[in-house]
Amino acid sequence: MIVVMQTGATKGQIQQVEEMLIHLGFKTHPIYGEVKTVIGAVGDKRLLNTQLITNMPGVEDIVPIMKPYKLASKELKQTKTTIQVDDIIIGGQEIVIMAGPCAVENEQAFYETAYKVKEAGAKILRGGAYKPRTSPYSFQGLEEEGLKMLDIAREETGLKIVTEVLDTRDVEVVAEYADILQIGARNMQNFRLLKEAGASGRPILLKRGLSATIEEWLMAAEYIISSGNPNIILCERGIRTFETATRNTIDISAIPVVKELSHLPIIADPSHATGTWKYVTALSKAAVAAGADGLLIEVHNDPTRALCDGPQSLRPDKFTQLVDELKAVAVAVHRTI
Amino acid sequence: MIVVMQTGATKGQIQQVEEMLIHLGFKTHPIYGEVKTVIGAVGDKRLLNTQLITNMPGVEDIVPIMKPYKLASKELKQTKTTIQVDDIIIGGQEIVIMAGPCAVENEQAFYETAYKVKEAGAKILRGGAYKPRTSPYSFQGLEEEGLKMLDIAREETGLKIVTEVLDTRDVEVVAEYADILQIGARNMQNFRLLKEAGASGRPILLKRGLSATIEEWLMAAEYIISSGNPNIILCERGIRTFETATRNTIDISAIPVVKELSHLPIIADPSHATGTWKYVTALSKAAVAAGADGLLIEVHNDPTRALCDGPQSLRPDKFTQLVDELKAVAVAVHRTI
Amino acid sequence: MIVVMQTGATKGQIQQVEEMLIHLGFKTHPIYGEVKTVIGAVGDKRLLNTQLITNMPGVEDIVPIMKPYKLASKELKQTKTTIQVDDIIIGGQEIVIMAGPCAVENEQAFYETAYKVKEAGAKILRGGAYKPRTSPYSFQGLEEEGLKMLDIAREETGLKIVTEVLDTRDVEVVAEYADILQIGARNMQNFRLLKEAGASGRPILLKRGLSATIEEWLMAAEYIISSGNPNIILCERGIRTFETATRNTIDISAIPVVKELSHLPIIADPSHATGTWKYVTALSKAAVAAGADGLLIEVHNDPTRALCDGPQSLRPDKFTQLVDELKAVAVAVHRTI
Amino acid sequence: MIVVMQTGATKGQIQQVEEMLIHLGFKTHPIYGEVKTVIGAVGDKRLLNTQLITNMPGVEDIVPIMKPYKLASKELKQTKTTIQVDDIIIGGQEIVIMAGPCAVENEQAFYETAYKVKEAGAKILRGGAYKPRTSPYSFQGLEEEGLKMLDIAREETGLKIVTEVLDTRDVEVVAEYADILQIGARNMQNFRLLKEAGASGRPILLKRGLSATIEEWLMAAEYIISSGNPNIILCERGIRTFETATRNTIDISAIPVVKELSHLPIIADPSHATGTWKYVTALSKAAVAAGADGLLIEVHNDPTRALCDGPQSLRPDKFTQLVDELKAVAVAVHRTI
Repeated sequence: MIVVMQTGATKGQIQQVEEMLIHLGFKTHPIYGEVKTVIGAVGDKRLLNTQLITNMPGVEDIVPIMKPYKLASKELKQTKTTIQVDDIIIGGQEIVIMAGPCAVENEQAFYETAYKVKEAGAKILRGGAYKPRTSPYSFQGLEEEGLKMLDIAREETGLKIVTEVLDTRDVEVVAEYADILQIGARNMQNFRLLKEAGASGRPILLKRGLSATIEEWLMAAEYIISSGNPNIILCERGIRTFETATRNTIDISAIPVVKELSHLPIIADPSHATGTWKYVTALSKAAVAAGADGLLIEVHNDPTRALCDGPQSLRPDKFTQLVDELKAVAVAVHRTI
Repeated sequence: MIVVMQTGATKGQIQQVEEMLIHLGFKTHPIYGEVKTVIGAVGDKRLLNTQLITNMPGVEDIVPIMKPYKLASKELKQTKTTIQVDDIIIGGQEIVIMAGPCAVENEQAFYETAYKVKEAGAKILRGGAYKPRTSPYSFQGLEEEGLKMLDIAREETGLKIVTEVLDTRDVEVVAEYADILQIGARNMQNFRLLKEAGASGRPILLKRGLSATIEEWLMAAEYIISSGNPNIILCERGIRTFETATRNTIDISAIPVVKELSHLPIIADPSHATGTWKYVTALSKAAVAAGADGLLIEVHNDPTRALCDGPQSLRPDKFTQLVDELKAVAVAVHRTI
Repeated sequence: MIVVMQTGATKGQIQQVEEMLIHLGFKTHPIYGEVKTVIGAVGDKRLLNTQLITNMPGVEDIVPIMKPYKLASKELKQTKTTIQVDDIIIGGQEIVIMAGPCAVENEQAFYETAYKVKEAGAKILRGGAYKPRTSPYSFQGLEEEGLKMLDIAREETGLKIVTEVLDTRDVEVVAEYADILQIGARNMQNFRLLKEAGASGRPILLKRGLSATIEEWLMAAEYIISSGNPNIILCERGIRTFETATRNTIDISAIPVVKELSHLPIIADPSHATGTWKYVTALSKAAVAAGADGLLIEVHNDPTRALCDGPQSLRPDKFTQLVDELKAVAVAVHRTI
Repeated sequence: MIVVMQTGATKGQIQQVEEMLIHLGFKTHPIYGEVKTVIGAVGDKRLLNTQLITNMPGVEDIVPIMKPYKLASKELKQTKTTIQVDDIIIGGQEIVIMAGPCAVENEQAFYETAYKVKEAGAKILRGGAYKPRTSPYSFQGLEEEGLKMLDIAREETGLKIVTEVLDTRDVEVVAEYADILQIGARNMQNFRLLKEAGASGRPILLKRGLSATIEEWLMAAEYIISSGNPNIILCERGIRTFETATRNTIDISAIPVVKELSHLPIIADPSHATGTWKYVTALSKAAVAAGADGLLIEVHNDPTRALCDGPQSLRPDKFTQLVDELKAVAVAVHRTI
């Protein structure tokens, strides 16, 4: 890291900072400019409480040189991580489609949707049993009853299951049923939940927080990896910006950026990103073209009657058509669906 | 609410929407413009799954007329809520100062800081025993040991205690020790935690989420009130914007806006909002001048050695001076400290 | 539009608002809810100074029903606008590639780049003669000398020319040389420049402002169309968000949203959007997959020596490879390059 | 500045970068870490085209140490700049109030407002003769006729005049009438206008752009100072964020931050920042408490009939009351009004 001293920092202050750095195990390399002095400090900043330095008299700023994440970084592991769920590989040649309704609600409708998304080409079934809702007056999910319906759908269709966990107390029961545990955007920095979910041993689908930088997102992944679970699928689902034409703004650049910085696979959720089914097709194609390893798409048999996120759900026929169109885009970027 | 039909919506589609609205218990008032038709629907939208309407053929949009929150709203309760913790009243004439270190770390230093903030005029002591940290490699708090130190500090100084709870599983133990439970910015939409903390019966200090609108913040408060606990103190602590000169951007307008929309008291946290101690004084004065009911300020005996958020902590002498200067501003807006 | 009255608005206030609306030529339709009254007003809000209403006693808000833009809207003109520059059609079946250096600098290098982008498949040459630079100490462009070099490059290669105009005083001279006038992001709401450039009769490439909503962008287009020039090419070039991993955040959803709302063609500028050449390929593919009608890409013979925006410029060989790869994506979405 | 080399940069690459830096007149200080190498480069980066370095093989990033602005910076000039307009001093002990309608419209009403704001304590009269309007269908200002009305109001009341200039072609005429030229938020990076307005010799009121960082704002000031005019008054008027409860979000921290970084005076415009007159009082107090050197407030005799920005205008009686209340806040921070 580089310690930047204030304009006008005294010799004594510079010396004290150097002494502190040496005391903390760093090698120091002061550089005296005409106006400012900076001190290069060689050592592992990640193990340091940088405030020991930041608050010393005469210090203006600390510029880190290394990324704050380590295990999630390509600097440590350069081969791409692939995550295997039975015979499905996420992060490989194939683009994996995950689809299903926002929430598990009506039993029959749910099984029907499950069959249809399977037929269309999805490999993994999504469906929320525990729902984080902005309003306390909205439907909050069927909880364990919903998990059981997911289980039956898996039995019947052979699809694998991804479902969200909201509360550390539910990790155990959700992990019992789910093939992949989802951490929602609102919980991306619920560090206790990250650790607990990581400890379950299940692969984790980690959604990007609504206002999380890519660096913070990779730090959230670092929490899970550092608790012993390297099987993380990152999911870009839109960030909050000033634009209101779409519910969120999908940060499509996050796909190539994450691929540059990390070895983890990354998928996109165009349904939550836009909040409107009519933009899902264009964004799905864009995500695949940009290099996404998969898609998470909301499909509902009867969006008009969905208890959750109906406006962004595709009907099964539209979804089938989308997957067909996506195949051509996948081929164009040398992938398969 | 107002249902806006698409340009070119057919008579049949308009009729179907009206029928659905009537079926759902609304009274309808269609208005036929030259280009568009809208349907006014009288009834309580909050009890409705609006997707039943949004996804009907020919519907473009739904415009709500009532606020989505009810119990947190001034429309329901016009007198200002005051929260009493022993003899301290939050939301009254007096501006209540809450101060202390980011995290409870070293026992002796903590008690010393506690005494000093009390002397300076603080009424409530802050200090984290459970810490949400962006990096898994950072200090995560002393947990119950920290709570015990808070308890001792309360005994010795007579200050009341506010401390954060991160996990539904910790609500019970934290509520046992704390006078006020803090829900941090990252957990503002951790709805399970909101409910559990609300159910503890303790007053809740509810920080605004990093990218939460004021409406979403009041909806989070609604979760707590609707679970039976009306004692909520809102805390503005900066939102995420494109500006990087400060850690976050304090939304000082949120203070008058919340006072316009809600009966709940609101305080400000200038320390987290700026991330830099040297801006804390200016922002504290601004918050009081704008009408804040209190302040939450980080004070640390030796910020250089703080394990958490040192750069934004004031030293006790600076804090004493700040409180003195604040008194004049309080008088100017007809309040006291 | 809908006028929402405050909770507690009196009968008299409601009546006064109705009278004012009628006086202004609207037909009114009051709807009395249990808590609130709203007044539907049929007529053209665009011609109204809404403040006449907003500030009346008892009025809470005005909800517009119609879009504020008219000529740029699909409601008025449903067939897609195509813009013809000689034999090049923008907004048609073919995806039009515009490429070249950020600024016209060195004569020989510029002509060389021009030849190379032509060979690779570009149809239009970009290059700035007038440059808006954040720092007064940066290179500000060759001005008319640069325009002359653009002219020669056009002569020699047969490429058409797009170049930026910054100042109302330069519109005449730039329009003399350029085939398409570019309005940069920083000038999207320089309304005088919009009008002047529109009046030149040249097609306008209108970049989206750094923090402009799609609605504001279409309003800027409305300025140009209402001054008599319907030949506008919208260009998404990234918006400002909190994310710092890329220079801006490309709002890829803007492509399908604009296609839903407007008849104008839309292209993307992945170079300015990311600020880094290594992400340009992924974003170009994403933009084409999402439905863009063209791309604006920075190419420089020797990015290391570029006086402007070198880090985001592709070398000609990389650009040739990009266009080749894009062809497959174009085919996948039934377009050609 | 610090050049950060990529992990895995070769010895040869490091050497080439050093050679280039030396060639460009820098002194180099390479620091070899365990994973990465960085090169400290002593010299004035501001005079360098950094792309010469950024694009060299093996270079990851350049970290500037010095601020990009020089003349606007406190590093160069530590005493606060004060701007004198006749006997009014901006940036001194007194907080200067500028007030008046958004646009100059009706002659009689305008003079009446002018008298009233003077009586209340304003020293400078605002009023737009040239108006930047989002919609081409909105009132665009009375142009020179409006300037003449400003002139008469000055004659009659003794107030000084601040008014906006939108177009390089109007600088001359506006400068003839105005005491202070205003550069609006939308034109903060209209660099030609900055230069032209600066060259007029009049003091410049430079509004912060809607999505400009403080650094970019100070760079815009640098444009004006470097063209020979050091008389700049910065004006915080709200930035664009995701929050929609107010029209913009006032960045009140910008006040202490600018005072830390620059010697220029800074005022606040609470009217544009919130877009709603009822929040203007709270924000005015907050701005003064935070250290603002002045306020720019919209006052209109009959906001209901204002052709521009009525909802954010105070009536003269409310304004008089505001100034009275502000006096107490000014005293509390050792200033006068």
